[in-house]
Amino acid sequence: MEDVIKVGLIGCGNVGGGVVKILLENAENIALRAGCRIELAKVVVRNMDKQRPYEVAGYLLGTDALALVNDPSIDVIVETIGGENPARELIMTALRNGKHVVTANKEVIAKHGSEFLQIAREHGVNLYYEAAVAGGIPIIHGLKNSLAANNISKIVGIMNGTTNYILTKMYQEGAEFATVLAEAQKLGFAEADPSDDIEGDDVAYKLSILAGIAFNSSFKYEDIYFEGIEGISAREIEVARKLGFVIKLVAIGQAHADGRVELRVHPVMMDEWHPLAGVNNVFNAVFIEGSYVGQTMFYGPGAGMCPTASAVVGDVMDIAMHRKLGVSHPSIHTNFQKKEVVPIGEIQSEYYFRLSVTDKPGVLAAIAHACGEAMVSIKSVEQKQSKGEAAEVIIITHTVRESAMQKALAAIRKLDTVSAVHALIRVGL
Amino acid sequence: MEDVIKVGLIGCGNVGGGVVKILLENAENIALRAGCRIELAKVVVRNMDKQRPYEVAGYLLGTDALALVNDPSIDVIVETIGGENPARELIMTALRNGKHVVTANKEVIAKHGSEFLQIAREHGVNLYYEAAVAGGIPIIHGLKNSLAANNISKIVGIMNGTTNYILTKMYQEGAEFATVLAEAQKLGFAEADPSDDIEGDDVAYKLSILAGIAFNSSFKYEDIYFEGIEGISAREIEVARKLGFVIKLVAIGQAHADGRVELRVHPVMMDEWHPLAGVNNVFNAVFIEGSYVGQTMFYGPGAGMCPTASAVVGDVMDIAMHRKLGVSHPSIHTNFQKKEVVPIGEIQSEYYFRLSVTDKPGVLAAIAHACGEAMVSIKSVEQKQSKGEAAEVIIITHTVRESAMQKALAAIRKLDTVSAVHALIRVGL
Repeated sequence: MEDVIKVGLIGCGNVGGGVVKILLENAENIALRAGCRIELAKVVVRNMDKQRPYEVAGYLLGTDALALVNDPSIDVIVETIGGENPARELIMTALRNGKHVVTANKEVIAKHGSEFLQIAREHGVNLYYEAAVAGGIPIIHGLKNSLAANNISKIVGIMNGTTNYILTKMYQEGAEFATVLAEAQKLGFAEADPSDDIEGDDVAYKLSILAGIAFNSSFKYEDIYFEGIEGISAREIEVARKLGFVIKLVAIGQAHADGRVELRVHPVMMDEWHPLAGVNNVFNAVFIEGSYVGQTMFYGPGAGMCPTASAVVGDVMDIAMHRKLGVSHPSIHTNFQKKEVVPIGEIQSEYYFRLSVTDKPGVLAAIAHACGEAMVSIKSVEQKQSKGEAAEVIIITHTVRESAMQKALAAIRKLDTVSAVHALIRVGL
Repeated sequence: MEDVIKVGLIGCGNVGGGVVKILLENAENIALRAGCRIELAKVVVRNMDKQRPYEVAGYLLGTDALALVNDPSIDVIVETIGGENPARELIMTALRNGKHVVTANKEVIAKHGSEFLQIAREHGVNLYYEAAVAGGIPIIHGLKNSLAANNISKIVGIMNGTTNYILTKMYQEGAEFATVLAEAQKLGFAEADPSDDIEGDDVAYKLSILAGIAFNSSFKYEDIYFEGIEGISAREIEVARKLGFVIKLVAIGQAHADGRVELRVHPVMMDEWHPLAGVNNVFNAVFIEGSYVGQTMFYGPGAGMCPTASAVVGDVMDIAMHRKLGVSHPSIHTNFQKKEVVPIGEIQSEYYFRLSVTDKPGVLAAIAHACGEAMVSIKSVEQKQSKGEAAEVIIITHTVRESAMQKALAAIRKLDTVSAVHALIRVGL
């Protein structure tokens, strides 16, 4: 038998096109490294007439993905169509047919990963999804293998290139959110409908996948609290900079001593010296604290045709090397525990908030009273005259419970002298 | 047969003690993740009376390492004694006896890695050495597996914690090298005899190991040009800062179009916005450019008991997972090519150099003439009056050949009006 592994590719858009490019262009080195040839056998797409980022005419089989996952000549299915359906059915069928599956699809893994892994185990095959989280950054492999000796206490990720690009530009240029978003759309760094990126859903999928591996439990992505960056104005960025902070949209996973796990996605004001603070533009990074390794960070391109395809092909090569030995890869067990997500009201943080107030005697006293009543202890206050009777108040609290902060804010909103609550941003990592 | 893998540990100093700590303290989670128990079976040390960083009394067998590598009950040998001998003989014997080997020993791998891998292949076992380079950072695994689809064009590493700590403190405090070194020695961040770290040998070992994997060829570490940080004064750091640069000791590996590879270790003035510029204190990081992934960086603790042991135990877990399946791990092939190292005289760079001169008419003209004669094109010159007739001249060149720069500098040294050449530092990455 010739040493060759046959790949069936579903989807030939951005990521799929990158997979074709790498498999054809770098075939010789890939075969030398993996010890066996990796052959792009067949490609199916949704629409035969669409223009492809890479020439695949010779491999295009048609549009019947189901026929591909049922084709006995195919060893590995690479799924790059994204979305929940029909990806779910195709992956399940492929696994049941004894095929290894590599996917770049965060949504289907976040929603059905546990189910897939169960089927894969029953059929002695593997499911790989390095490309589903943070594109070219080998964070899943790192967590599953290299850091496997550690109990992970914390992960913090910048895992969305679009929002990180927007926040970087706002920081560098002092521009407003809407201006930079429009510019990002023109440059192709943001979708025409950017809501998945901007509002944080995208990052919530990724966090649920990473947290599952890091904390040895599966989590429902619906249990993850998330906020996007729509509420971050140029003024917030400006104030943060003066305070020595950088604002980033982060995904946080943190183990509690009681066995529960905090999972949340929201903007944070982080110290400008934190390793994540220097992660700019469309780059992503994941910061990890392990019981033995201490602090590590993985940095790289979180998206893009070739970086994401690089991760997909890396997974296929791992399968190829193991198939040569006649075994499937012995995946590390990652969901042997059952952990709860800490409700957002119970988390603790320092908070930054900014108010517009009427500059009258007793305003600060009323705000301070509302905080005190809710058990929110204030660390610093800055009041600044604007024009006429209006003034701006910026408050940073000590570490308090989220529920207390929300209670204080509700009371502050009701004060006659407070005309607007502009932002509430968690401070520190 | 019970699912258990038996580890024989050679050496119980800093790293060995960390391995004992992790294997005993985290045994349950390690077994759950790896799917089999990893048992610390026997430990041998050089000196039975020495104090250990972690209690191993119950496991201490004695001082006969050769008996351990010949013990048929041991599955995996973990070698943490460091140095070329007797590590070489012990590793070779273990591999020949059909035992997998995990080592944290950069020197023995840099000098004999190819020989070991050959023996390992012949005996169907594996050799792992993640901990030998950059401690807890999973850079070897990342290059061998996750990034395997890429042809690597460049690696740049900050891979020595001692020198990075010293350069960070010099930058932050404006202190001189000798002052900070003494402080680092007091804090335990530098050895009593720091020459291996300071002079660059340590990093040259690590670069030869990484480059072997990245560029698919084995390299002799003797072929690597290296300079340490002894020549970096507080004045150089100060000037660099004003120019928007940070000085770091880096290891550079860069593929040339003609198939040769640049391998060199020396201080560099890098742009303060480069991701490596923010890697401070004892932290390490390795920056990689791959043909598909683009730019990635792995960041973490480059040394220390637990971080290094975390990498060792990660390797042992990988062996354990594969042994369960009855196979050794199919290592990626990494030395299927034979590449030459580019002689240092042929590299190209911008250069910074600083001179003390006599402030007389014609001084600059003479320096510029010497540069012109050697084909060194000058990008910027700054002359600064000190006291009396003395002045300081700071020159940055355009990109020129190293041999040309050295020729120019030799001519400059001979000028009557030049009283000292203080530093020559390569600029840019």
